[in-house]
Amino acid sequence: MPDFSADRPLSTPSSGGRTRPAPADDSLDALVRVLDDVRLGRGRSRAELAALTGLGRGVVAERVGQLLERGLLVEEGLGSSTGGRPPRSLRFVDEAGHLLVADVGATGMRVAMTTLGGRLIAHRAEPTDVGLGPEPVLRQVEVLFRALVDAVGSAAPGRLWGIGIGVPGPVEFRTGRPVAPPIMPGWNDYPIREYFADRHHAPVWVDNDVNIMALGELRTGAAAGHENVVVIKLGTGIGAGIVSEGRLHRGAQGSAGDVGHIQVSDDPEVICRCGNRGCLEALAGGAAIARQGEAAARDGRSPWLAATLAEAGRITAADVAREASRGDPVAVDILQAAGRLVGAMLASVVNFFNPSLIVIGGGVAGSGDLLLASIRETVYRRSLPLATRDLAIRLSSLGDLAGVNGAAVMVADQLFSPDVFSRWVDAGSPAGMPDIVA
Amino acid sequence: MPDFSADRPLSTPSSGGRTRPAPADDSLDALVRVLDDVRLGRGRSRAELAALTGLGRGVVAERVGQLLERGLLVEEGLGSSTGGRPPRSLRFVDEAGHLLVADVGATGMRVAMTTLGGRLIAHRAEPTDVGLGPEPVLRQVEVLFRALVDAVGSAAPGRLWGIGIGVPGPVEFRTGRPVAPPIMPGWNDYPIREYFADRHHAPVWVDNDVNIMALGELRTGAAAGHENVVVIKLGTGIGAGIVSEGRLHRGAQGSAGDVGHIQVSDDPEVICRCGNRGCLEALAGGAAIARQGEAAARDGRSPWLAATLAEAGRITAADVAREASRGDPVAVDILQAAGRLVGAMLASVVNFFNPSLIVIGGGVAGSGDLLLASIRETVYRRSLPLATRDLAIRLSSLGDLAGVNGAAVMVADQLFSPDVFSRWVDAGSPAGMPDIVA
Repeated sequence: MPDFSADRPLSTPSSGGRTRPAPADDSLDALVRVLDDVRLGRGRSRAELAALTGLGRGVVAERVGQLLERGLLVEEGLGSSTGGRPPRSLRFVDEAGHLLVADVGATGMRVAMTTLGGRLIAHRAEPTDVGLGPEPVLRQVEVLFRALVDAVGSAAPGRLWGIGIGVPGPVEFRTGRPVAPPIMPGWNDYPIREYFADRHHAPVWVDNDVNIMALGELRTGAAAGHENVVVIKLGTGIGAGIVSEGRLHRGAQGSAGDVGHIQVSDDPEVICRCGNRGCLEALAGGAAIARQGEAAARDGRSPWLAATLAEAGRITAADVAREASRGDPVAVDILQAAGRLVGAMLASVVNFFNPSLIVIGGGVAGSGDLLLASIRETVYRRSLPLATRDLAIRLSSLGDLAGVNGAAVMVADQLFSPDVFSRWVDAGSPAGMPDIVA
Repeated sequence: MPDFSADRPLSTPSSGGRTRPAPADDSLDALVRVLDDVRLGRGRSRAELAALTGLGRGVVAERVGQLLERGLLVEEGLGSSTGGRPPRSLRFVDEAGHLLVADVGATGMRVAMTTLGGRLIAHRAEPTDVGLGPEPVLRQVEVLFRALVDAVGSAAPGRLWGIGIGVPGPVEFRTGRPVAPPIMPGWNDYPIREYFADRHHAPVWVDNDVNIMALGELRTGAAAGHENVVVIKLGTGIGAGIVSEGRLHRGAQGSAGDVGHIQVSDDPEVICRCGNRGCLEALAGGAAIARQGEAAARDGRSPWLAATLAEAGRITAADVAREASRGDPVAVDILQAAGRLVGAMLASVVNFFNPSLIVIGGGVAGSGDLLLASIRETVYRRSLPLATRDLAIRLSSLGDLAGVNGAAVMVADQLFSPDVFSRWVDAGSPAGMPDIVA
């Protein structure tokens, strides 16, 4: 493990003669830019880093030296060279520590231990009910965290450096508290950050489940290399994670992406739990698909769904998706109708936002190509040609793991941001962070 | 005028001993941050600048010294002080040069001369027809530029430092060329930048008319202080400028904000010029409002509009707005219906994007409070409570001048961006920029 108690100042050696650490100044930005380029795999040699950052080669060499001394980078192997001294290859010390992350959904949760770079070491999933309120649900997360730590044992790389949590509702990112979350009774303003920081003495970041899913797809999944992306989660609810020019767009109250309550029908019969009429979620969400499947089972239109109902006592959206993929025409109709409604919403989003990629994920998306085809057909028909000229619409490549992957990305990005990094190095140790961050 | 031929290097004096200008490194970023904070009115003293930038006071003092030497900042007056040496107040030299800007719409254009800070020195407006193609329309802009320059004469501050152009269609910002603009026949890929750069030997930037309008409102108008904003232009067409976390969101092809073609009706009778059915613009754009007004004049429902039709031979959206403000119930109905449709589109946008402010501008918005009231009512009724909790919906405060104001903001932001600034200082003079920028 690197020695973070070193009191080596971050000032540039060439500025010479100072005995105190330098104040936060340009040198910290340069340090973080160099670290990011190696950490995110953009550059591996000092020459590449100089080209990427636009910094002088002397400045890059100094910053690389500081990061090597602190154990955040290592030099290893030998790159190829056409002559002279062979270039050495820089690598981020992914295994310098580990992270604990949780992706809490409405009806299930997944927790994981990852390296600093977000590589999964171990993970577990369990059903949950977010409606039970914060105490029992966070206790369940905490129990799973402890079980993971016990299971991994001494194979865990380094110390715990940070914790990341995703929850199914709007979050004020700065404080890590839910803000009036519609499907999370009792969670409004609950101090999720403090709950885990107090127990683990590590810094904690919290965000919306769809935002962390979008971060996961952006950095390690289907959206890698894209700058303007909309990630749709089709599950019990319907939500979107939005990436604008490479950064998460959270909106003024952190509620951006609440696309489940965009009106897609004038039918006065369809009342949503939000109180409005014709909301997308009320017509095409997981509960709506299950309800339509159960109706088809009861009135005899689908003998396959009727058999499932007789056996299990209820029909879920997953049942409808399974029967559709087996060819039940009624189930196919239900999914295609849902796809067209999701597509109608996305056509508006494409005209407004002009993404280069839409990623479809979440439990309902597990039904795959059938749903994707009807979404695509509607989006391409109803959006402007310029906006769809280079638009791709894909299924999530990370599936159920997008959330925990993204939560790890969120924590690493925050740990190595200029603001947090400066306080963290000054404090001498990551264990000193929670007080600073909170 | 400051002496831009000075070959003073941008390197930090304390790094000593170098005879060549420093390579682009941290010092340039610091220089631009200090300049921006003074230029945009955030800080006026070295102490304020140190607090704002997080840079050390020594670094700030060096950068301020370089900017004073180059004539971009001056020290003037005396700030108040509670003791010791009174602090001197820094000011950006707004009058060090001037800009020429044009806001070209579908049926009218406005050109202006401004200071570097975007203060209007003189402006003129004329009708135009963007459908005539680039050569005649840009020639009209050029004639107006020359007329402005002649009229202002020796009162123009300094030299011409840059040119900014807004056009009513998607633009690839990097090259300044329109990309498949639907209402600009003949303009696709036309080199607007080169047209003016060749004639004026100054750098040129081009963007969509609604994007520059949004920049104007953001920096000097109704949206000042907001981070997440949607600016709607209601004119012949309907478009949106989008601000995400303080920056313009242009989208993957530069076509973000094309909200006129979001579907707001299932009526198969309403065919839009884009070929789709039920587009917002086909139902609530300026042409649609005029058409409905003319129908009401012809079938005798509105004697007031009939009188206008008899006199002028046609009805415009402005005629309908005028009669509505005078109380004609038929004109009021037409405008309210349009407002409800714009509101329905905005309700979706609010759920997706969660802005803290929507600004309504453009010719049709000149009808004022009547239209605003029906837009507001629909948005607040159909969006989620959290997203509208702190949402304001306001009329443009800059009106017809938002475009030219925003074009000046665009040019100044580009001139003083780290990337352009470094090449500009190296080249010794702003007159040397077009080759570098193009």
